[in-house]
Amino acid sequence: MSGEVRLIPLRGIPELDEGGDLGALLVESVGRAGGLEAGDILVVAQKAVSKVEGRVVRLADVEPSARARELAGDEDARRIEVILRESRDIVRTRPPLIIAETSHGFVCASAGVDASNAKGPDTVVLLPLDPDASARRLRDRIRELAGVDVGVVVSDSFGRPFRRGTTDVALGVSGLTPLRDLRGQRDAAGYELHATEIAVADEIASAAELAMGKTEGVPAVVVRGVAVAGEGSGADLLMPRERDLFR
Amino acid sequence: MSGEVRLIPLRGIPELDEGGDLGALLVESVGRAGGLEAGDILVVAQKAVSKVEGRVVRLADVEPSARARELAGDEDARRIEVILRESRDIVRTRPPLIIAETSHGFVCASAGVDASNAKGPDTVVLLPLDPDASARRLRDRIRELAGVDVGVVVSDSFGRPFRRGTTDVALGVSGLTPLRDLRGQRDAAGYELHATEIAVADEIASAAELAMGKTEGVPAVVVRGVAVAGEGSGADLLMPRERDLFR
Repeated sequence: MSGEVRLIPLRGIPELDEGGDLGALLVESVGRAGGLEAGDILVVAQKAVSKVEGRVVRLADVEPSARARELAGDEDARRIEVILRESRDIVRTRPPLIIAETSHGFVCASAGVDASNAKGPDTVVLLPLDPDASARRLRDRIRELAGVDVGVVVSDSFGRPFRRGTTDVALGVSGLTPLRDLRGQRDAAGYELHATEIAVADEIASAAELAMGKTEGVPAVVVRGVAVAGEGSGADLLMPRERDLFR
Repeated sequence: MSGEVRLIPLRGIPELDEGGDLGALLVESVGRAGGLEAGDILVVAQKAVSKVEGRVVRLADVEPSARARELAGDEDARRIEVILRESRDIVRTRPPLIIAETSHGFVCASAGVDASNAKGPDTVVLLPLDPDASARRLRDRIRELAGVDVGVVVSDSFGRPFRRGTTDVALGVSGLTPLRDLRGQRDAAGYELHATEIAVADEIASAAELAMGKTEGVPAVVVRGVAVAGEGSGADLLMPRERDLFR
């Protein structure tokens, strides 16, 4: 039986610099919010993770390539250069928009390179090098400090084809199964559910976004009441290129 | 300030036939779950809505066209015929998969035509003719019976390019603004947020799915604590074709 789900925003977490102990701040904040329970899932915004991992680039240090200058048009070619360095493929371009496949395999705008909420107008924040490893480190630190084994999702806001606006998705996970496979299961009426896999980790990330509020400095949310314990990888959510009708 | 969000599943709602009073059943169920509060959003699965609206087709009544037979391959050409009738454009095909643009403008597998959880092995369920109108009727009926003005989202599970698995999205809405426009707003650090629109109604639908549990007969969820009151349409979430890089 599925029961009530709670989305609990974690407040009072300041902006961190490289090397900051994000896990400790999360545990402190969650203590003020009533503590963690086994089975909780902690959703942490990618940007907070990237900053403590030092995934910040000062554009003053970037020399744009000829290709970056060509793609940039009226935009800052140094930012385009950073996007190209984060990409293993450019999927679509329409200046100033670049849809890229990142080195991890995520297909998203600007290869996840983001200027907003950065540490200054001339810096950009990159995606974590290995979002699963980021999630695992936070999970380990939380278990060490709070004595509770939680699932962790590192989330980011992605646009998508055909629909306006961003929804949050899971880049990396630890301690949970990101896809729920219902193939072969029967529904309440006894009929087989066809071809149904639910991207539950993406739904968890989107749910958490509702409690984050982009402009209010809430980089993490506890999701309580969703049974997804297990092991998996954010890469489980990536459509293999040969199965993708839109590549 | 964003606060806690609760996702409350509504139980004990039986399968309904055409003309059934889904609004009354929702109000009864929500009464058992503690009642409604102003500002609540009720997310209702498309399939429950379609059934009371009579959007069910018996395949025995369908004569497939030549094109349906051609696209069907080993599949049931009558089902393909229904998909073609629901479509205004075929976006991609790879048998047995058809990605179509529905008459409403949704881009999804099988034009939203779904065999699972139907009223028999040889029936299919179609999307509502006008999902905003469906949401509005439910909202009006709930206000009439419960005296509370809620937002209503009619949701469905859609696949998407680049990522595996489905996430729930909003087909139709009433009493809420489906896109949150942050363009021009400044984030916690004082920097401008660029080009950010959040598809909050889709995130609400995805969040609700977490509390629905596909196989357990929970066709509706109360989402409490998300401030999105306003007016809008599910069509606000559709990317205009001329802006879509993937069409």
